[in-house]
Amino acid sequence: MFSGNGHGKLVGSTQVDELGVLESPVVLTATLSVFRAADALLSWLMERRPDGVSFNPLVGETNDGHLSDIRRRPITEDHVLAAVAQASDGPPAEGCVGAGAGTTALGFKAGIGTSSRTVRTAGRTGTVGALVQSNFGGVLTVLGVPMPADELVPAADRTEPPGNSCMIVVATDLPVDARQLGRLARRAVFAMARVGASFSSTSGDYAIAFTTSDQPPIPDGEIDPVFAAVLDAVEEALLNSLFTAVTTTGVGGRTSHAVPHRAVIERLTAAGRLPAPPLIPESPSETRLRTTPARDEPGS
Amino acid sequence: MFSGNGHGKLVGSTQVDELGVLESPVVLTATLSVFRAADALLSWLMERRPDGVSFNPLVGETNDGHLSDIRRRPITEDHVLAAVAQASDGPPAEGCVGAGAGTTALGFKAGIGTSSRTVRTAGRTGTVGALVQSNFGGVLTVLGVPMPADELVPAADRTEPPGNSCMIVVATDLPVDARQLGRLARRAVFAMARVGASFSSTSGDYAIAFTTSDQPPIPDGEIDPVFAAVLDAVEEALLNSLFTAVTTTGVGGRTSHAVPHRAVIERLTAAGRLPAPPLIPESPSETRLRTTPARDEPGS
Amino acid sequence: MFSGNGHGKLVGSTQVDELGVLESPVVLTATLSVFRAADALLSWLMERRPDGVSFNPLVGETNDGHLSDIRRRPITEDHVLAAVAQASDGPPAEGCVGAGAGTTALGFKAGIGTSSRTVRTAGRTGTVGALVQSNFGGVLTVLGVPMPADELVPAADRTEPPGNSCMIVVATDLPVDARQLGRLARRAVFAMARVGASFSSTSGDYAIAFTTSDQPPIPDGEIDPVFAAVLDAVEEALLNSLFTAVTTTGVGGRTSHAVPHRAVIERLTAAGRLPAPPLIPESPSETRLRTTPARDEPGS
Amino acid sequence: MFSGNGHGKLVGSTQVDELGVLESPVVLTATLSVFRAADALLSWLMERRPDGVSFNPLVGETNDGHLSDIRRRPITEDHVLAAVAQASDGPPAEGCVGAGAGTTALGFKAGIGTSSRTVRTAGRTGTVGALVQSNFGGVLTVLGVPMPADELVPAADRTEPPGNSCMIVVATDLPVDARQLGRLARRAVFAMARVGASFSSTSGDYAIAFTTSDQPPIPDGEIDPVFAAVLDAVEEALLNSLFTAVTTTGVGGRTSHAVPHRAVIERLTAAGRLPAPPLIPESPSETRLRTTPARDEPGS
Repeated sequence: MFSGNGHGKLVGSTQVDELGVLESPVVLTATLSVFRAADALLSWLMERRPDGVSFNPLVGETNDGHLSDIRRRPITEDHVLAAVAQASDGPPAEGCVGAGAGTTALGFKAGIGTSSRTVRTAGRTGTVGALVQSNFGGVLTVLGVPMPADELVPAADRTEPPGNSCMIVVATDLPVDARQLGRLARRAVFAMARVGASFSSTSGDYAIAFTTSDQPPIPDGEIDPVFAAVLDAVEEALLNSLFTAVTTTGVGGRTSHAVPHRAVIERLTAAGRLPAPPLIPESPSETRLRTTPARDEPGS
Repeated sequence: MFSGNGHGKLVGSTQVDELGVLESPVVLTATLSVFRAADALLSWLMERRPDGVSFNPLVGETNDGHLSDIRRRPITEDHVLAAVAQASDGPPAEGCVGAGAGTTALGFKAGIGTSSRTVRTAGRTGTVGALVQSNFGGVLTVLGVPMPADELVPAADRTEPPGNSCMIVVATDLPVDARQLGRLARRAVFAMARVGASFSSTSGDYAIAFTTSDQPPIPDGEIDPVFAAVLDAVEEALLNSLFTAVTTTGVGGRTSHAVPHRAVIERLTAAGRLPAPPLIPESPSETRLRTTPARDEPGS
Repeated sequence: MFSGNGHGKLVGSTQVDELGVLESPVVLTATLSVFRAADALLSWLMERRPDGVSFNPLVGETNDGHLSDIRRRPITEDHVLAAVAQASDGPPAEGCVGAGAGTTALGFKAGIGTSSRTVRTAGRTGTVGALVQSNFGGVLTVLGVPMPADELVPAADRTEPPGNSCMIVVATDLPVDARQLGRLARRAVFAMARVGASFSSTSGDYAIAFTTSDQPPIPDGEIDPVFAAVLDAVEEALLNSLFTAVTTTGVGGRTSHAVPHRAVIERLTAAGRLPAPPLIPESPSETRLRTTPARDEPGS
Repeated sequence: MFSGNGHGKLVGSTQVDELGVLESPVVLTATLSVFRAADALLSWLMERRPDGVSFNPLVGETNDGHLSDIRRRPITEDHVLAAVAQASDGPPAEGCVGAGAGTTALGFKAGIGTSSRTVRTAGRTGTVGALVQSNFGGVLTVLGVPMPADELVPAADRTEPPGNSCMIVVATDLPVDARQLGRLARRAVFAMARVGASFSSTSGDYAIAFTTSDQPPIPDGEIDPVFAAVLDAVEEALLNSLFTAVTTTGVGGRTSHAVPHRAVIERLTAAGRLPAPPLIPESPSETRLRTTPARDEPGS
């Protein structure tokens, strides 16, 4: 684990620090639902070990109260159990899904983003993946080019709070030990600077890194390619969390606008960061956050 | 905060580390109820700030599964709200109460213990108080004299696990800042060594220290009397958590025996640690842990 | 203090962490001279407190062995005493001076860089200053525009090691306490990402932040402008450490090339990051690192 | 590493934290000689790796200025090189030797102490050894029995400062990784409470733990016997550092008295902590600290 700015309610961190073991799936949710989600995840863990009395669920959260009616604490045990049951090894959903349904970042609608890199080092080939729940302040920066929200979406309201937390999960199948995972987690937070994060005081910016390998760790002398992969994958995951999000109207009628893809591409092209204008994808459609999540939509 | 051994599920620590502020009452409970208790404390906090969306409840826990049927997660929101409502500035209940109802430590029945010291330093007079939820392994040591459970209560079963966590709360009205409170918290854990703690791997041994003063902090050059008070108050609170506990039979018919006061006094006297034999108090009576807490007994 | 990557020999950190006090001037030097410099700084401290027996000199270092013959450990007590004696409140020298004489960063010749920002917050106006000793790997990024060394100086040798440490000093006259200074120090390291740092494993990347104010600290709720100032000042100081450096030939005839200012400006202009081409300053002249520092040049 | 109270000048800690590797012999010295000793150790390291430019000497220190004229900084490179050259796998010298020549602890003359325990766990048998440089305040406590210096040596002056640091080195040949070594180091400091440490603000109380094994680490579930061995070995090493020390007169004619063995045994016997009075060893003879260490006595 690394706490870049600990203004958050991350559940489960001290035991991970002590033992270097992640005992549960990582669940992400809204800040005021974090304990209900943790309790639900505990149920899932308890069911799998009927005699156990010690379980350490890991639940991250951000404050998406700008769009979500988070004081309702809508997340139920059924939502969490269904989310865990649906987990697969396929590509994760991105954008305004799950814990990203109501988040905003860098002046735009944000959400869940993922990315990965293939790494070759120490005679091995492995993958570094990142999944982020983005919800923090600053000025969106893509490939080094600033994309200020008040220029790209001038009409938008700018009332969202400056910092609301960013939870970053880094996973790898390369053999690294707990100490090295801590090094990876630090770099995951450093990568937030690449996309323009302001690292404001009110943001709970945490990273957790884990490996699926139980092999002897690679030497630190050959870990730089893994560090580079973390920096790149987290940067791209953060960008993807915005690029896959859609304009969303939430509680109180507040609207958070998606990044306008066309404007981003134009600016990148003008800055010489794109060799040629790509085919511009269709504008994402809008969505409207329901304030009463249905029981049959666990991920919402 | 200080994590002596982070094998626990303490809720709220990272934000306290970051901001140096304790936003909520400190609630203690059993490990598998920690998230329900945190969610209930959140309800209490939300009611007091109807527009808030960021709250950091602080909930400590220990694993008292040897005597309690903790997998039932019996703690309800009503229990927590009633416990907070009942909080007063009078002397706190000790022994087998609240989160101490089912705990065991150093081979004996344990529970909640408290103690305090008056400190004069830096031209001020203040108080250092400690409250502990004791639940850890080792050999009970009183004033330096070992009191092995298998000698004092030979017939007892010795099946409780070696380490189950110890949560320590230190409070003062002396002016100290967040950095200094971290120094106090470390010493609170150090004091566990004085009563014979084994600091086993499975114990979540945490301390949180807070002050009620908002005055400029005393200089570090005059803080030693505060450190001494923390060491002494925590040592005594740990002992009190055992001396006020009573023999208790819990789930599965397992019994944890109270420290036999008479035997302790005899050993202390033999070791010359008591000038003359005191009046030996009545043996504490036994109790039996109900496995179904009634709704009208919030502290249980 | 914050250790972004602790592969370095920073002297004095644990006491600063514990007490929140900086007792000495901050001296920067080459890695193998760090203990001689610390001993010299100790002499300076001892002279000022003739009865003292406890002093905590703070000395940062980087490995500039690519250009300097650091195994000679050339820094003498006279150098350090003269450097401290010459310290003034005027603008510090930048570029290839002092501990920056032999450093390289991001593929170019680097050195000492400084910058500052004026901050208004919490009813106060103050300054945040940064001084860096840059010596780390990555791809130079200016205002978001990559400036790869192998494109800007194609003929240069690329044999310098990937990461050799970056020491960052942040100073302010705003009232902040030790805990808050730790928050500033973290952001100082985060700012390295803005200029393209690779955060490689072999780099000792540390920041220390201190204040000259002894007033009650500003509230965390109003600290964001200070954080922004740290991010901006460190970013600019890192860039200045390169822009003020000159092409330097050192030990073994190895040459590290200064950033070509004209090429940077052309790329910035092409990327639309400069409204109009500025007057391009004269190319900095070259220098040659002497391998035998004279005794009368303490800063070298 | 663990910093129980970071008021000290320990050299080399941040890199050990980052990489989990100890690159050098551990040298102990007096506080104001720590940088000269580190520089000398650096010479030793550089000689063994003629092409190297990165070395991390590990040097602990305490303030023995009560008896030693530490402002003279008498330790030379020759002393350090000779000490390292003399290192052997035989039993280390104890008492008033080396960095322990001038230290005092718990009101008595102290010095270097060692101890070890054999541990069987996880199908392995190994050793946990401890070496301490004791120099801290409190009330000496032996097997739980207080031995106040003002009772045992009433005529002694009590002018030594309350806390002057304790450096603890724990070594094992059991396979444990860097994270687990951090757990061992914490317990080494906890053990100071067993002998009556006051953990005063001015004491630099650090522990470093290392292993000589490169095998896969034992599981945390079987690490408790190692923890117990650390607690016991450090407690005994601390006691040995006093019991092997002799009354010493140092700078300014100040005398620190050795623990009177006979009185300790009498008190232990009276407290029932010794089954029968042992043969009382001869009183250790006195010594007088020379203020000018000869060059041919490297360990002094």
